[in-house]
This record gives sequence, structure tokens and C-alpha cells, in this order.
Amino acid sequence: MVSNFRFASIPNIIFGAGKLSELYDIIGNFGKNVLYVIGGSSLKTSGKWDEITSEMFRRTINFYSISFDGEPTPTLIDEAVKKFRQKNLELIIGIGGGSVIDAGKAISAMILKNDSIKEYLEGVGDKVHDGKKIPYIAIPTTSGTGSEATKNAVITEVGSEGFKKSLRHDNLIPNYTIVDPKLVVSCPPSITAACGMDAFTQLLEAYVSPRSSPVTDALAFSGIKQIKDNIIPVYSHKSSDLKARSAMAYGSLVSGIVLANAGLGIVHGLASSIGGMFNIPHGTVCGTLLAESTKMNVKRLKQIGHDGELGLMKHAIIGALITGKGYEPNIDVSYYCSVLVETLENWTKQLNIDRLGKYGITTTDIDNIIERTGLKNNPVHLNPEDIKEIVVNRI
Amino acid sequence: MVSNFRFASIPNIIFGAGKLSELYDIIGNFGKNVLYVIGGSSLKTSGKWDEITSEMFRRTINFYSISFDGEPTPTLIDEAVKKFRQKNLELIIGIGGGSVIDAGKAISAMILKNDSIKEYLEGVGDKVHDGKKIPYIAIPTTSGTGSEATKNAVITEVGSEGFKKSLRHDNLIPNYTIVDPKLVVSCPPSITAACGMDAFTQLLEAYVSPRSSPVTDALAFSGIKQIKDNIIPVYSHKSSDLKARSAMAYGSLVSGIVLANAGLGIVHGLASSIGGMFNIPHGTVCGTLLAESTKMNVKRLKQIGHDGELGLMKHAIIGALITGKGYEPNIDVSYYCSVLVETLENWTKQLNIDRLGKYGITTTDIDNIIERTGLKNNPVHLNPEDIKEIVVNRI
Repeated sequence: MVSNFRFASIPNIIFGAGKLSELYDIIGNFGKNVLYVIGGSSLKTSGKWDEITSEMFRRTINFYSISFDGEPTPTLIDEAVKKFRQKNLELIIGIGGGSVIDAGKAISAMILKNDSIKEYLEGVGDKVHDGKKIPYIAIPTTSGTGSEATKNAVITEVGSEGFKKSLRHDNLIPNYTIVDPKLVVSCPPSITAACGMDAFTQLLEAYVSPRSSPVTDALAFSGIKQIKDNIIPVYSHKSSDLKARSAMAYGSLVSGIVLANAGLGIVHGLASSIGGMFNIPHGTVCGTLLAESTKMNVKRLKQIGHDGELGLMKHAIIGALITGKGYEPNIDVSYYCSVLVETLENWTKQLNIDRLGKYGITTTDIDNIIERTGLKNNPVHLNPEDIKEIVVNRI
Repeated sequence: MVSNFRFASIPNIIFGAGKLSELYDIIGNFGKNVLYVIGGSSLKTSGKWDEITSEMFRRTINFYSISFDGEPTPTLIDEAVKKFRQKNLELIIGIGGGSVIDAGKAISAMILKNDSIKEYLEGVGDKVHDGKKIPYIAIPTTSGTGSEATKNAVITEVGSEGFKKSLRHDNLIPNYTIVDPKLVVSCPPSITAACGMDAFTQLLEAYVSPRSSPVTDALAFSGIKQIKDNIIPVYSHKSSDLKARSAMAYGSLVSGIVLANAGLGIVHGLASSIGGMFNIPHGTVCGTLLAESTKMNVKRLKQIGHDGELGLMKHAIIGALITGKGYEPNIDVSYYCSVLVETLENWTKQLNIDRLGKYGITTTDIDNIIERTGLKNNPVHLNPEDIKEIVVNRI
């Protein structure tokens, strides 16, 4: 049965090794006055930034650039907006990891406003963004957050009053995204691992979400198929293999599309609260909590009888996909669910995903974390004790 | 391996029985001056048109309407544009079958231009459309063409110098599409059948197209899954069943998304030439040629050895899906391909799809047809004799 669903527009996608070269012709559709939002140093050390700037000079396109190192804060976004508000920008281009892509998205959305981004953040400010923005092109250099295809920018303020909240509007979906796996080959193993786990988490959470639709199911499944066989190789012996990097880049891209349309679950609920309280990379929180959360979801889905059948079956379908043999109806659903959980546990070990304790999180923080954690679109209700168990097991 | 691909933006999709009611809030995002492009009489006899107009009055939205009966011609579009060019329209809404949706799309694209649509049609005029248009909402009342999700409007001029050609631009994808299966329940059986075959043709041709990507594959597969079990029931005993109608509406919607991104094959090559020469419904041409074309494609794919393996495998995967048991690697690919071809032959009979002869097409027309027929993105080269065989077998 195809039940009701909504599916927001997605960016124009240009996917493929070497496709960064198509950027310059696309810029021409928008204008001659461009702001680049880039990351710390990797784009520059790789020589890619020189390549881009020479092309800008050659085509007499006027451009500015601003660097973001770490996750964007309200202050950093407000300052950037102030600096470039009078420049009559016609296009913004973000090239970097998820934080950079989000920073660029936030600037493109705020540059036509006169107040702070804080006013528009969900759960923080009171204003509702109207979707008016400067056109935006997102070019990821990691395979993880899927931000190149989403309608929200995550803004972080770390501390006791900290938060990790979104500026969100359907129209904030990037106008174009260029996904060029060549840009990801230089991504270091630990970031590759955390980002890969983040992408897989997004695909799985969207797949089992009660808000999923046949469109998101089909796309999530196609992304999981690519990631399951490549998440370990790109971390180990295949970090320079464009085929493996393409598979991960594809998984990340569709994870963004599906999360924007089906929502996420408890892992991202926790990533939001923990990420606001502690300085911990987003992919690491997701990666470290995924196996435990999945185990808990499966356990609770089993206990609620008929209401849990669909959610359980969806976990089983992914377990079956991982076996490589496909789903066989005469095999017990529980078996496939444990294949999934065990695989996630193995990945967590093989990828050396940090525990929460490494970032200063202790058992004394747990109540505080639980209080700030929402379930989002988790496939089953979890009570505070369940969430506590997930976190404790990963400290 | 994820190879290079492009994927154009898709409309904001609102899917579900009764969702037409969400139209009015969406109109508010665009303005208060609207043109409705509607079909002949069915919207009016069903009472839906009264419902829409009262809501327009209640909300004091100024609106005009224009009816299209049959496929849009250059003259009809030019006349409509002339009539409404000075009305300062802020939004155009097309509600009807594929022809009506295309007419609305064409008007929304031409109203800012001062010349005839003929100048911009592929293979007819010399001008290239720049994508500037009035925002457009597409609301299908048949499940077939997928035009609610495509970037082209098909314009037809029937006759010896006739054509069936597209006005095309990425930006012509409707801003919104509302797919409400309730609007399709009154669609008569013969149109339901022809449209269903058109949608299946589009899904299959996009799935086996050399331009397909993991995104189009995942979506096409999900559409085929829905159509395969419902195409006969909606024609026979389940014409009022919203579950079956939803499945077909979903299949049609994704057929539009995938054809816009992966292209089509020989069936649509022939539908374009034959449709320009004879007065024959588009769904009927597609439906009548699908089984024969698939049989020929499989035959030629088998003959080219290694180069044909992927195309053959993709036909086999759909055959396996139809068996309901999934693909088993130890079963011969040929077996699954014949399941597919036989199923299509059975559907053609069960749905009483007309032969070409009924529309005045005879063997003397064949050379003329072949001369005007392009292969589009067919998975294998076919020579004129092959195409002739397909057509002769359906006269």
C-alpha cells in the first residue's frame, strides 16, 4: 500500500569522479559575483583551491572566500553575513565537510535578513524563515552528512546552555550539488569512518522511520547497498579507490535526500543533545551509538506485538541485504535483525569508533543528556531508561 | 559501481487520497492571480470543479480557466498564451490527464515569451528555451504519463508533416505536484489501461536505459513493484479501490521522475513518430508496442554477447520481480526474460489494448514510420528491419 507522503524537491545533482570541472559552467547561470565557503586547509594543501581560483580569474568571475574550521556557531554565521551582506553576491558555493556545507547554506539563507540566525533556529528563536536566499551550490569533500541534499543547516553552540539546532526551510535545499568522489580520496581514515557511520545511520533511521515512503525506502535501500560493502574498505586498503569512494559518496548523498523526507531516529536525537553539550564530532556520536540504538529498537519492537511488525521487518530486510543472499521468508525475522546488529557492532570495532568517554562524557552527565533528547521519528517508543542504557553502554 | 550521473530536481510532491485539499494553502505561496488549465468535462461532471471554484471565491483568489480537449497543438498553446499574456498571472495550475498537464506546462513556459512555441520545440524550431516561466502546479487525473514530474511538455501536430515534439528545460519541472488517487477513480477502463501501460513502459525503458543511475534504478524498481500487481485490477474489479489506484498513481509519478533522468527507448521512439502521423492515444501506442519491443530488445541483447549482459540482466531482474519470488542466480537469465515478455503479452490481451490497424495504420505506412523513428536511449541497437518487425506484428 502506498500511503500518503510528501517529498520535497531535491538539488540538481551532478555525480561523478572529476565532475568538479562542471562547476564553472554552472556558475555562469547565476552571475559573476560569488562567495566561496571553504574548510580549514585540506582544499588548499590538495591544490584544488589553486585550480578553482585560477579558473575564476580566467573566466573573470569576481569571488570572495571565507574559511570555517569546525562546526558553525551562530556568532560565526552572523559575522560572515555582516561581512558579505553589502557585496551583492549572486551565488554562494560551499566546498567542504558537512560543517562547511551547512555554514554556506546558513549564510545563503541569512544574507537577505537583518537579524541573527539564532532568531530562526528551531527550538531556539521565534522567527520562521521564509525560504528567501541567495542561490547555493554544495560540493562535499567527505562522504557522511548528506547535507549537500538537505533543507537544513545545523548550527552548534557548545556548553552547558549549548545546542545543536537547525535552520530549516524546503527552499534551503541547495540549487545544485556536485558530488565528485575525487574530492574525498584525501579524507583521513578516522573522518572517513565517522562520516561513513553517519551516512549509514541516516539511511537506516530514515528507512525504519514511520514517515518513510516508497520513494525514501527505494533510495535508502539503494544507499545501504552501496555502503555495506564499502564502509570498511574505504577506511582500510581502499581509501584511494575511486569505485569504493563513489559508492560511499552515493550513500551519503541519498542519506541526505531520505533524511530530509523521512526524518531520523534516536541516534540523531542523542547526537543533537550530546553534540550541544560536548565537543564531539557528529559522525563519532552517531557511529558510537548506532549498534546499541539498533539493538534497543529491535528489542522494543519485538515487545509491542503487531504494532512492531513493520519496523521489525524493515530491520530484517536490511539484515538480509547484508547477508548478500536476500530475504528468505522461511527464515526468522529475528535472525536477520541480529545479523544487522552484529554487523553494526563489528563495524564499530573495525572502524575504531571512539567511545563517548573519550570526549569527557561520564555517567554523571546522563540525566542531563536524557532530559534534552528527543526521539525524533524513531520507529518505536523508548523510555528514559532505554535511552540511558544505550548511552551507558557507549561511555 | 556507481558511475557518473546527473539527476535533475524533482517537484515538491504531495501524495495521497484527498490531498487535493492542500492545493489552496500552496496557492497562497505564489499569489492571488491564477490560471487553471483543465480537461474536457470529467472534472466538471465529477463535481470537483465546483469544489475548486467555491474555494477560490471563499479565499478571494482571482482565477481564469481554459479547457483543453485532446493533445495540445502549437496553435492552441499560442492562442492560450496570447489570451492570458496580459493578465499578470502569478501561478498556473494544470488539472487533468497528460495532455492537460503538458498544456499547462507549455503555457507557463511560453507566457513570458513573445514568439510561437514552435520556435522552441526540439527538432522543429531553432530557439533554446531559457527556463523562465510562471510557477506551475500539476495535478494528474490519470495514472500514466508521469508528466506531473517531467521537465518537458509534448506538443503534437498530426498530419503528413506532423510531429510530436517536446519543449524541454530543467526548470519546467512543476514547482509542485499533488497526486491525489481520488481524482483517478472515475477514469474509464480503456484510458486506465492505456495509461497504466504507458507508465509501465516508461519505468521499464528508464530502468534498462544506458543512462540509468542507482537513483533512477531504485525509483523505477519501486514503481514497477506497485504497477505489476495493480494494472489488471484497476482495469477490472478494482477501479474504485483507492489502494490499487494509489499504487498506479505512484507508479506513474515515479515513471515521470525516471524518464526525465534516464531517458526512454524504442517504444517511445515509435510513439513519437506514429503519434505525429496518426490520431492515436499515446498510451495505446506504447501499450500495443511494449511486449513486441521488449521481445526484440531481449533477442538483440542476447546476440551481442558481453555488451548485452547488463541490459539482459536488468530485464531478467524485472522478470524475477514479476514471479514474486525474487531473482535466483542459479536460474537462467533467459527464463526471467521470457517471464517478462509473456507477462507483457498477457497484459496487452487482458487490457484489450488496440492494435495499430484500428487507427488506420497499414503496412504501406511502415517505411515512413521507420524513417521518422529514433532509438532514443534503447539498451541495444535495433536496425530498421527490427523496428519494422515490431510494428508489423502490431498492425
